[in-house]
Amino acid sequence: MIKTVAIQGVKGSFHHIVSQQYFGDEITLKECLTFDEVVQSLLTGESDAVVMALENSIAGSIIPNYALIDNHNLHMVGEHYLDVQHHLMALPNQDINDIVEVYSHPMALLQCKEFFKKYPHIKLVEDKDTAEVAQRIRTKNLKGVAAIASKLASELFELNIISESIQTIKQNETRFVIVKKENHEVSESDISKASIKFELEHKRGSLAAMLNVMSDCKLNLTKIQSMPKIETPWKYAFFVDVTFNDYGDYKKAISIMEIMTEKFKILGEFKDAKL
Amino acid sequence: MIKTVAIQGVKGSFHHIVSQQYFGDEITLKECLTFDEVVQSLLTGESDAVVMALENSIAGSIIPNYALIDNHNLHMVGEHYLDVQHHLMALPNQDINDIVEVYSHPMALLQCKEFFKKYPHIKLVEDKDTAEVAQRIRTKNLKGVAAIASKLASELFELNIISESIQTIKQNETRFVIVKKENHEVSESDISKASIKFELEHKRGSLAAMLNVMSDCKLNLTKIQSMPKIETPWKYAFFVDVTFNDYGDYKKAISIMEIMTEKFKILGEFKDAKL
Repeated sequence: MIKTVAIQGVKGSFHHIVSQQYFGDEITLKECLTFDEVVQSLLTGESDAVVMALENSIAGSIIPNYALIDNHNLHMVGEHYLDVQHHLMALPNQDINDIVEVYSHPMALLQCKEFFKKYPHIKLVEDKDTAEVAQRIRTKNLKGVAAIASKLASELFELNIISESIQTIKQNETRFVIVKKENHEVSESDISKASIKFELEHKRGSLAAMLNVMSDCKLNLTKIQSMPKIETPWKYAFFVDVTFNDYGDYKKAISIMEIMTEKFKILGEFKDAKL
Repeated sequence: MIKTVAIQGVKGSFHHIVSQQYFGDEITLKECLTFDEVVQSLLTGESDAVVMALENSIAGSIIPNYALIDNHNLHMVGEHYLDVQHHLMALPNQDINDIVEVYSHPMALLQCKEFFKKYPHIKLVEDKDTAEVAQRIRTKNLKGVAAIASKLASELFELNIISESIQTIKQNETRFVIVKKENHEVSESDISKASIKFELEHKRGSLAAMLNVMSDCKLNLTKIQSMPKIETPWKYAFFVDVTFNDYGDYKKAISIMEIMTEKFKILGEFKDAKL
């Protein structure tokens, strides 16, 4: 039973929205300043699950979050897609010309940098969380300061949206995962997707052989990303997501892959959210 | 003949260091504020080549730069690896406790965020370029402000290094590419690596078939990354780097792949810098 869900950010953040959509309103939200803190809360038992952004269609994978899940041997037990729309918001009765500084999360600033080219007078400042800035503008009554955050944040903190959907690429789908310490709760019949990691020697055809196994076992590849291993220049780690109709097919594939690869690891098994 | 090389950033930036190491001191450096400006300078003929960071071992690929090369049909004609070490620097006679604000590039701030956890009094502010901050501290005589930048920047702008190599992961290799408008100058005998892009229908085994072709033609895969195409949910684009000993093998592989994939495109052919 999920009681407490930890997120990076405060109420009104995109992580909060995902947590609402995935778990409903019955859970307690634990607001953390960083993803490290989120993971710590899970490890100490302060939270039962965490919501974590993992990739978006603009910047690709959020590799540091992959590393957090991998290094702490956590398990993805679910996934959720959110269409992230960034709005520029401030205290009422101000327009864009009144704004001197905009504070937001680095990823949000990156996604909206094109918009701000038209307003060189605005200073962009990196901050920990999109919604926390919105909250701060309200509690400290900050004039001349704007936040880039969600519609939910503008509602919660009663800010006025100066400009809607200011990110450069308007369709901005972000994939979030639900992460837990243990992986006991998803029943086999509900599992239709898995996230795996393995390493291969840098040998011609080694990855092709792996993909042949997956294909022979009727797995569909939905994501693949190689990461060079700095310490061992001729080895590569691969992060792969697969979907499948039959759990038995998947089990067969991974039993072969465990033999044919090094450091084979299942990062998560869950229901394909796109089904 | 390369005369003018455009970089994102100013003298003392990591792009400047790569430009020096790759082209020597005989070229004119064109300093640009953004990667977009860098590309524009190439398109208008203001520069003959550009140096562009493409991936690093911490954050993975810099997808927006891949998109710039792809969207403008530019060509990678070379690659260069740099061990990026971030140093904290300020005007002389200040220590870490005197520093109130640190300005730097978002990627540099991200890579060093662990270090700053010990110093919560320091405000981190996103800026356009690592070295430009160092320059500004010197020209405006800014006290209480530090930059995160290269050793070269500290030398050029006579700043004192407060703390060396403050990035969380000490080995921090970044891959840069040399990009031009045309692809005429690398002779076939010098080509040992290529960067290609193609699209595949989301059909089981489609990528495995491609990797089999590559393997049969004796190509080694050094990088693979899938990118979902937002507009067409069931298609995937793949960015792949391959190395090879024989240009003929490579030519054979791509002639097959051109038939078997959609939107096949060569992003660059060049000398493998790791050889």
